[in-house]
Amino acid sequence: MKIYLAELSVRSKERMQIINVTSEVSGIIERSGIKGGFVNLWVPHTTAAITVNEHDPDLWTDILVTLEKVAPIKGDYRHNAKYRWIPGEQNAHAHILNSLIKPSITIPIVNGRMLLGTWQSILFVEMDGPQTRTIQVQVVGE
Amino acid sequence: MKIYLAELSVRSKERMQIINVTSEVSGIIERSGIKGGFVNLWVPHTTAAITVNEHDPDLWTDILVTLEKVAPIKGDYRHNAKYRWIPGEQNAHAHILNSLIKPSITIPIVNGRMLLGTWQSILFVEMDGPQTRTIQVQVVGE
Amino acid sequence: MKIYLAELSVRSKERMQIINVTSEVSGIIERSGIKGGFVNLWVPHTTAAITVNEHDPDLWTDILVTLEKVAPIKGDYRHNAKYRWIPGEQNAHAHILNSLIKPSITIPIVNGRMLLGTWQSILFVEMDGPQTRTIQVQVVGE
Repeated sequence: MKIYLAELSVRSKERMQIINVTSEVSGIIERSGIKGGFVNLWVPHTTAAITVNEHDPDLWTDILVTLEKVAPIKGDYRHNAKYRWIPGEQNAHAHILNSLIKPSITIPIVNGRMLLGTWQSILFVEMDGPQTRTIQVQVVGE
Repeated sequence: MKIYLAELSVRSKERMQIINVTSEVSGIIERSGIKGGFVNLWVPHTTAAITVNEHDPDLWTDILVTLEKVAPIKGDYRHNAKYRWIPGEQNAHAHILNSLIKPSITIPIVNGRMLLGTWQSILFVEMDGPQTRTIQVQVVGE
Repeated sequence: MKIYLAELSVRSKERMQIINVTSEVSGIIERSGIKGGFVNLWVPHTTAAITVNEHDPDLWTDILVTLEKVAPIKGDYRHNAKYRWIPGEQNAHAHILNSLIKPSITIPIVNGRMLLGTWQSILFVEMDGPQTRTIQVQVVGE
């Protein structure tokens, strides 16, 4: 069994933003040469996450609006109070949502392709942008 | 190391419904012959998810009631507005919750059995039923 | 490819409490001798979970406060009503949040170390303590 690791760079432009990275991940799997196995996506950040859903920017707004209801950007957070003088550190909402959505997902690979359903795209969830972010793509198999 | 893939079919009967699929997954692991390793469950849908919890239909109602508070079925969603004339497409709540719970889980296997705790069952979470759904069960190990 | 399994014991002191287990998991990976691969963490409980975030006890309070807003400890739950005479069984909130956060996470290993970002720590989330808990740590690779 072979392990192939590649790094993906993602550039967000908004504070809260969903970015479809399916084709970039597919390209890495193709370059790995692995035909059967799985890919584990890992986001090494505490204020961004990774999930899966339909490619529909309207839906992405719905998702972000719901996330902001669960943990409002302007909330009464201890983490923010501690760093009140640093604008870039007013991001407790992003940390909290990261712990809920979590920064990884594992997807089976068959015949060199991820077993994504018709409507499934891989979505990077920026919650404290704009920033340049990294996704670690680990492909495992044969 | 061996990889064994099988598909599980699940038939939901309600709009929001939790279905225990532990024994079906255990059966696939047994048929795989894999004694040590792990199983990755993958739901190739954007309006259903997979999680783990106690086998208690009363608790399942509690879980679904809480999910509906986070993302009400009848909410003001852009995704639904776009497809207002299609009753089957009024499912933004299910998409949003899918992105939160997510469609996969990875469970260790030891001595041919999943390392489930006493109270843990594998729960398929239907959020836009009734439908016939698929779970991809990938068993990896030796 | 090698599989190494070890059990981690965690002792919580509060009802809701976040505990950083990064160094214990790192120690197990070191003892496994595995240099490249991944670790899958599995919590065999239905009222505790595992996630990743910054080591900041103030932030942990923010996370727990938000979780309690999603599923309040003193809520109107069927699971609790059924066991109303058993104080130790008034834990529906913990079950619900376990199904949202989920009890596993898979982290890539490179050069014998987890690919954790600068701010990432592995956090055990107790939601029905105080209790002695178990985390199954499965290291896979070469």
